[in-house]
Amino acid sequence: MLKPLGDRVLVKVRKEEEKIGGIVLASNAKEKPTSGEVIAVGEGALTPEGKRQPIDVKVGEIVWYDKYSGTSIKYDDEEYLVIRAGDLLAVED
Amino acid sequence: MLKPLGDRVLVKVRKEEEKIGGIVLASNAKEKPTSGEVIAVGEGALTPEGKRQPIDVKVGEIVWYDKYSGTSIKYDDEEYLVIRAGDLLAVED
Amino acid sequence: MLKPLGDRVLVKVRKEEEKIGGIVLASNAKEKPTSGEVIAVGEGALTPEGKRQPIDVKVGEIVWYDKYSGTSIKYDDEEYLVIRAGDLLAVED
Amino acid sequence: MLKPLGDRVLVKVRKEEEKIGGIVLASNAKEKPTSGEVIAVGEGALTPEGKRQPIDVKVGEIVWYDKYSGTSIKYDDEEYLVIRAGDLLAVED
Amino acid sequence: MLKPLGDRVLVKVRKEEEKIGGIVLASNAKEKPTSGEVIAVGEGALTPEGKRQPIDVKVGEIVWYDKYSGTSIKYDDEEYLVIRAGDLLAVED
Amino acid sequence: MLKPLGDRVLVKVRKEEEKIGGIVLASNAKEKPTSGEVIAVGEGALTPEGKRQPIDVKVGEIVWYDKYSGTSIKYDDEEYLVIRAGDLLAVED
Amino acid sequence: MLKPLGDRVLVKVRKEEEKIGGIVLASNAKEKPTSGEVIAVGEGALTPEGKRQPIDVKVGEIVWYDKYSGTSIKYDDEEYLVIRAGDLLAVED
Repeated sequence: MLKPLGDRVLVKVRKEEEKIGGIVLASNAKEKPTSGEVIAVGEGALTPEGKRQPIDVKVGEIVWYDKYSGTSIKYDDEEYLVIRAGDLLAVED
Repeated sequence: MLKPLGDRVLVKVRKEEEKIGGIVLASNAKEKPTSGEVIAVGEGALTPEGKRQPIDVKVGEIVWYDKYSGTSIKYDDEEYLVIRAGDLLAVED
Repeated sequence: MLKPLGDRVLVKVRKEEEKIGGIVLASNAKEKPTSGEVIAVGEGALTPEGKRQPIDVKVGEIVWYDKYSGTSIKYDDEEYLVIRAGDLLAVED
Repeated sequence: MLKPLGDRVLVKVRKEEEKIGGIVLASNAKEKPTSGEVIAVGEGALTPEGKRQPIDVKVGEIVWYDKYSGTSIKYDDEEYLVIRAGDLLAVED
Repeated sequence: MLKPLGDRVLVKVRKEEEKIGGIVLASNAKEKPTSGEVIAVGEGALTPEGKRQPIDVKVGEIVWYDKYSGTSIKYDDEEYLVIRAGDLLAVED
Repeated sequence: MLKPLGDRVLVKVRKEEEKIGGIVLASNAKEKPTSGEVIAVGEGALTPEGKRQPIDVKVGEIVWYDKYSGTSIKYDDEEYLVIRAGDLLAVED
Repeated sequence: MLKPLGDRVLVKVRKEEEKIGGIVLASNAKEKPTSGEVIAVGEGALTPEGKRQPIDVKVGEIVWYDKYSGTSIKYDDEEYLVIRAGDLLAVED
């Protein structure tokens, strides 16, 4: 499996019009942020003092991000997004 | 519900010509800043020393921002804006 | 009323050819800096150490700024400018 | 009078072909730096530690700057330039 | 052999449709990130305090990166990529 | 005379094909770096701690720089260049 | 001779198709990084604390760099490149 590096998060992109908790999501809208499930989380960026900056999201959480953030990776026939944690806009709770 | 991440704030966008406190607001003007109600506030940006930077606005406050700031999210049929606290221009008091 | 956030200042834009102290002001010139009266001052930018950076202007002072600085806000039928204190060029004394 | 803010300096723009000390100055050249007399000096930029950075020029000195630096202000029928001290190239001694 | 400098990593570019562990990889896709094997790792960037920032990947690991990251080098008839460690997106584990 | 400010150096631009030490110099080449003699050196940039950063060149040395670096000044009928010390590429020894 | 300043390195550009150690080098390729021999090394960039940042390459080493890095200098009929040490990609060992 892919392990994101540094302050990056691996997100499984949500398919269009997929329902989560009974709600049809607007992720198919043009020019809109999209959302997905966190699959893996990097160790965090390394500070000059040699510490890791913690990342605010956990595996399994649904995160929202801008359509133009991150880099798409196709791995093992599945569509993923590698995105810096700081580019994530919000998390569902 | 959506929880904004880091130094971000979730704002419920005010509809055009909505009255608040009896005043018709200019939020329908073209190329002008708009305003909305703070729905949720992030934990604040993480400093290199591992502390959270406090955010200057609270849930329920009316904030003003530039039209081009933040990212629109449609969630649960409602229009929101996720915006960095530092991009908020002013708060009504 | 509007309270500017962080290192921002709320300025009431001076009308063209308004006289202050008997002098006709050049604020109607094209592509020139303009001036206005400080109406409210933010708490100052928050340093990483959690302190507020003081702002060099006070309510009531006349400040000058470049035409392209700040963001215009129409509030309660009055024209304001929200501008970062660091973008103010000069103050009249 | 105008008091420049922060690390800014107020310069009275020298007229073209004005003689200073008997020398015809090249300030009328196209696309060339120009020069002027320092009229007022700001308190200096505020460091994060709350100190003022000193400014290297004094009132009365003739400073040289690039044609595209600073912002022109017409005040009380006189042409001034508000320029950051760090954008000044040289001072005559 | 080539030794990458500072925070750089030397990667042997994977040929299109090469199988690794039985999986046909998508590295031949247009405008997609690609992957390769780490051949050599720099000493790490030097901090102002004179320490080396550690690099998160090791020789032999398969790393993924954006198509536009790094600089291609042809050395000894082999195609390599020199890329900053911070531009690597993910590592296979 | 002109005294360069901060981290700047005043250079007397070398005329094309001028010989120095018997060598015809390539300073007349198009799109190439040029060279000149250091006439005056600023006090050095001021660090946030209030110290001056020393400048690596001395009056009288021949320095080389990129054609697009620095700002030309015509002063007292002589062509000078005011250039930041950090933009100087090399010094002849 | 030329002494590079600060964090710069003076490189003697390798001629196209020159053999080093029996290998025909790809330095004649279009839009590819090139290589050359280190002729001189600067003292290193000065940190705000007044120390010199060490440079990772030594005189005599063969270094690789991107075609668009550095500045070409023709000196004493020889073609050189002045390049910041941090722009060097790799060194041959």
